[in-house]
Amino acid sequence: MKIVALSGGVGGARLVHGLARALAPGELTTIVNTGDDFEHWGLWISPDLDTVMYTLADLADVGRGWGLAEESFAALGMMKRYGEDDWFALGDRDLATHLARTRALRAGETLTEVTARLCAALGITSRVLPMTDGPRPTLIDTVDHGTLPFQQWFVRHRAAPVRRVRFATHPPPAPGVLDAIANADAIVIGPSNPYVSIDPILTLPGVRDAVRKKRVVAVSPIVRGKAIKGPLAEMIRAISAEETGPLAIVRYYAPLLSGIVVEEGEQTAASVRMKPARTVMTTREDSLTLARDVLGFVRELL
Amino acid sequence: MKIVALSGGVGGARLVHGLARALAPGELTTIVNTGDDFEHWGLWISPDLDTVMYTLADLADVGRGWGLAEESFAALGMMKRYGEDDWFALGDRDLATHLARTRALRAGETLTEVTARLCAALGITSRVLPMTDGPRPTLIDTVDHGTLPFQQWFVRHRAAPVRRVRFATHPPPAPGVLDAIANADAIVIGPSNPYVSIDPILTLPGVRDAVRKKRVVAVSPIVRGKAIKGPLAEMIRAISAEETGPLAIVRYYAPLLSGIVVEEGEQTAASVRMKPARTVMTTREDSLTLARDVLGFVRELL
Repeated sequence: MKIVALSGGVGGARLVHGLARALAPGELTTIVNTGDDFEHWGLWISPDLDTVMYTLADLADVGRGWGLAEESFAALGMMKRYGEDDWFALGDRDLATHLARTRALRAGETLTEVTARLCAALGITSRVLPMTDGPRPTLIDTVDHGTLPFQQWFVRHRAAPVRRVRFATHPPPAPGVLDAIANADAIVIGPSNPYVSIDPILTLPGVRDAVRKKRVVAVSPIVRGKAIKGPLAEMIRAISAEETGPLAIVRYYAPLLSGIVVEEGEQTAASVRMKPARTVMTTREDSLTLARDVLGFVRELL
Repeated sequence: MKIVALSGGVGGARLVHGLARALAPGELTTIVNTGDDFEHWGLWISPDLDTVMYTLADLADVGRGWGLAEESFAALGMMKRYGEDDWFALGDRDLATHLARTRALRAGETLTEVTARLCAALGITSRVLPMTDGPRPTLIDTVDHGTLPFQQWFVRHRAAPVRRVRFATHPPPAPGVLDAIANADAIVIGPSNPYVSIDPILTLPGVRDAVRKKRVVAVSPIVRGKAIKGPLAEMIRAISAEETGPLAIVRYYAPLLSGIVVEEGEQTAASVRMKPARTVMTTREDSLTLARDVLGFVRELL
């Protein structure tokens, strides 16, 4: 069964880790948000790609929720001493990823190509695609700080209250993205933030139309009225003036959605089928269990 | 007494450390070879500037002879995993220097400006100037491997036999270099390799003529027929077909030189005055003692 997963950072990455184990080799393609990408210390950083890559390679730091496990921060300490920006913490091993990627991009390699190469070097066997090779910075119109690029908003301003999320550019999806969707038996939208992790993918030219032709299952990122991680609940209230809960996610994806996986005990009447499951993933086994539940639900809907 | 020191890496840097302690604030300007500079992992590396800077800031690793003390190599390990070049070992803290410098150069800062800023951040109070802001790669014509840029020759090919050293470009000296020399009471040539550390400085347009007008004292980098560090003795034999010893250094610098400091017991009859001293520096105290001997000798010659 060919599955395309759409993913942001941590939550999406953990589901993808389970899907990669639950599916046969060659069955999974993950399309990853790159709207959070930015330049820092002269390096090109792709936070969601890195989180997906490190998670798939079993190198991610599970407790901290970002970066690599067994990481050190010697370079960061020295950068502080030089008076360089230190609001975004890059670890020493993590730096290697950004150095290798940046050098490759400057040499003319595409983000798709360098992502494939780095994933292969880390022993990742499923396919990981950036959503686009072009720059597509996600812009956040905030209530108090004007318009900010994603990382400035998310890290530096700690996800300050949002009016609106915008995309300034409309580059084509990366090579392989539309084909992967067209060839998929179903699309799985990971438990990521719809506004800033999934919408950047869906609003690329041609992607929403391609997804619409498929069975689409989302995993709700909302548990007991709160986002498992990040500022999603506040964003739903601010942007959509809706109650936060699985129904807000259903309404958001409505025209695309065949079904949604929600936290056990939170299923309600909805316009699509709801499947209860344990959606909070901490361990590898949590990810595999949820992935199997998601795939079982997908099979019911096909 | 205003002193300009010409320096390559380790030996020159250690003498400069002593000179900075022996002189009053504002009396010392160090002009540093940048012919070994190169790009690696997409970063601009200035090995001799770094060695001088780390040594002056008491951050250098004394045992290893390059890089920072208490250094880690986590990024390097990850770069190897990605299949990136690993023949030049960059430490994690050291990476911060290259990241900060590279970003500044890309933003239009000159090497002189960024060097001053990094030195100030490390608490260095004497003046450190790169020899030039322009690129001036030292090219090594080898016997067996054709023409190599410095680091490829020195690190990757372990200083393979040399036919000739060449400079492909002739950029102007960095701002301040000619003025510093013109205003100096004396020039001290550090115990660095004349061919690949000092000649890159002396052969910049106008530098040799400016130096010629001053009292010039060199510290011999040769002790008991061998270079204290590096392939100098072999280079002297190969390039100049001379016996290796202080006299080879005297002949090399002859038209400029007022005197030379040589290792105790190695003084001979020569065309310039020789001053015996303990020239092998390991500790900070070695550097200070030699610096005082050099400055005493300079005063005798003024």
